[in-house]
Amino acid sequence: MIEILPLQGIGEIAPGDDLGAILAAALPPARDGDVLVVTQKIVSKAEGRFVTLSDVVPGAEALRLAAITRKDPQLVELVLAEATDVLRAVPNVLITRHRLGLVMANSGIDRSNIGPGGSDRALLLPLDPDASAARISEAVGRPVVISDSFGRPWRYGVVNVAIGASGLPSLIDRRGDLDRDGRRLEVTQIALGDMIATAAGLAAGEGAEGIPAVLVRGCPLDGEASPASVLVRDLAEDLFQ
Amino acid sequence: MIEILPLQGIGEIAPGDDLGAILAAALPPARDGDVLVVTQKIVSKAEGRFVTLSDVVPGAEALRLAAITRKDPQLVELVLAEATDVLRAVPNVLITRHRLGLVMANSGIDRSNIGPGGSDRALLLPLDPDASAARISEAVGRPVVISDSFGRPWRYGVVNVAIGASGLPSLIDRRGDLDRDGRRLEVTQIALGDMIATAAGLAAGEGAEGIPAVLVRGCPLDGEASPASVLVRDLAEDLFQ
Repeated sequence: MIEILPLQGIGEIAPGDDLGAILAAALPPARDGDVLVVTQKIVSKAEGRFVTLSDVVPGAEALRLAAITRKDPQLVELVLAEATDVLRAVPNVLITRHRLGLVMANSGIDRSNIGPGGSDRALLLPLDPDASAARISEAVGRPVVISDSFGRPWRYGVVNVAIGASGLPSLIDRRGDLDRDGRRLEVTQIALGDMIATAAGLAAGEGAEGIPAVLVRGCPLDGEASPASVLVRDLAEDLFQ
Repeated sequence: MIEILPLQGIGEIAPGDDLGAILAAALPPARDGDVLVVTQKIVSKAEGRFVTLSDVVPGAEALRLAAITRKDPQLVELVLAEATDVLRAVPNVLITRHRLGLVMANSGIDRSNIGPGGSDRALLLPLDPDASAARISEAVGRPVVISDSFGRPWRYGVVNVAIGASGLPSLIDRRGDLDRDGRRLEVTQIALGDMIATAAGLAAGEGAEGIPAVLVRGCPLDGEASPASVLVRDLAEDLFQ
C-alpha cells in the first residue's frame, strides 16, 4: 500500500529559512519507501529567488512578446532571461524552454501565493533543483522530489512533475525486459519521479496552492538513484518514442 | 491521507468476462473519496478488442510507414485504422492521434502481456472508454478511471493518464479563483483524472504490467462529474496554455 500524507504546520517560508530543518521537524521517522515531495514554490522562497518586477527593464524582444501575449513586459523580460527558446507566444500564452531544459509556461515564473508585495514580485525556479533536492534530502534523511505544475500538449489541465530529485531513481529503464509471454516490453522507461510528484499533488490540494510538502510512503524505489534532470528529453528528439 | 491499494486476485481477463462483477468482488466496501483505477488492458480484454494480425491486409500507406518505422506492416495498418492523424513516423516510433483524440504511440495498440497467441494478436483500446468506465462504476458502486501509459513530448518515460472516467470531475476548473493574496490564480485547470491515474500507477508495479486494478482512497472529488474525454485538448489548440 502507498500512503500520501500532507505535512501540516510548515507555515510561510521566507528567504534564508532553513527549509531542510523545518521539513525534518514536521516529518515522522523515516521508513524505507518514503519520498518527501516539496513544491518548487517553497524551495524558491527559501532560496530567495524573488525578483522585484519594477526593477526589470524590458528589452525590445520582451516588449514585442508582451504585446502579442498581453503580459506584463517586465514579466516577459524575466521569462526570456530564464529561457533558451520561445516555443509559443499567443494571447495569454507564453511557452518557453527554461535553461534547465524544462518546457513550461512563463519559464516557470510564479506570481500566485508569493506573499506580501506579490503584485510587484515574481519567483524564479531554484537555480539547480537537483542540488536543492540533495540538500533537503540530507536534512530529512530520505529521498526528495521537488515538484512543479506543468501544462501539457494535447491535454487540458496541469499535473505536477519532478523538476528536482535526490535519492530515488527518477527514470526506470526496462529496455530489454520481457513480458509474461516472453515478448519484449513495449513500454521501456517509467518516469517514476514524475509519478511520485503527481501522486503527491493529489494530497496537496487542487493546484498545489495549499500544502507545500507531502510525504509519499511505500514507493517502489529499487534501482540506482538518478536526478530529475534525466527526465528532460534531449533537444534533438522532438516527439516522444 | 490518500491511500493507494493494489487489488489482489483479479486473474487473467478473457473476452466476455463480467469485469464489473470481478472487480466488485475484489473490492472492500465503498467509502467517500474512493476511485477505482482499472488499466485499459483488462477493459479491452473483457470487451474482446483483440485482432489477429495475420488477418490484417496492409495498404500502401501502412507499407510505406512500416518501412520507415521498421514495424510490422499489419500492426501499422491497425494503427492507421484507429487513427485520425500521424504525428511522427521515424525508426521505432509511430505517434498518432487516435480517433478518441488521444495522441499516443501506435494508436494505443498493445502487444505486451496479452496472453496466449500474443505474437499474432494485438489489443485495441476500448471503443468508448468513458462508457466502459460508467458500466464498471455502476457495478462497483464508486467512481472509476480507466488508465493507460503515455509517452510525453520533452520528457522521458511514460506515466499513466485517464482515457476513461465516470463519477468524478476529470478536469477541475478554477478560472476566476483568487490566491491567498487576492491575485487571480495562474494555474486554472487541474487534470484530476490524470493525477489519479498516475498515482494508481505507483502501486500497479512499474509499467503497470502487474496489477490491473488499484483502489485510490481519500481523493478530493468535489465538483461536477465529467468524463475523461474533457481532458482531450481541442485540435485547434496546438500548444498548452
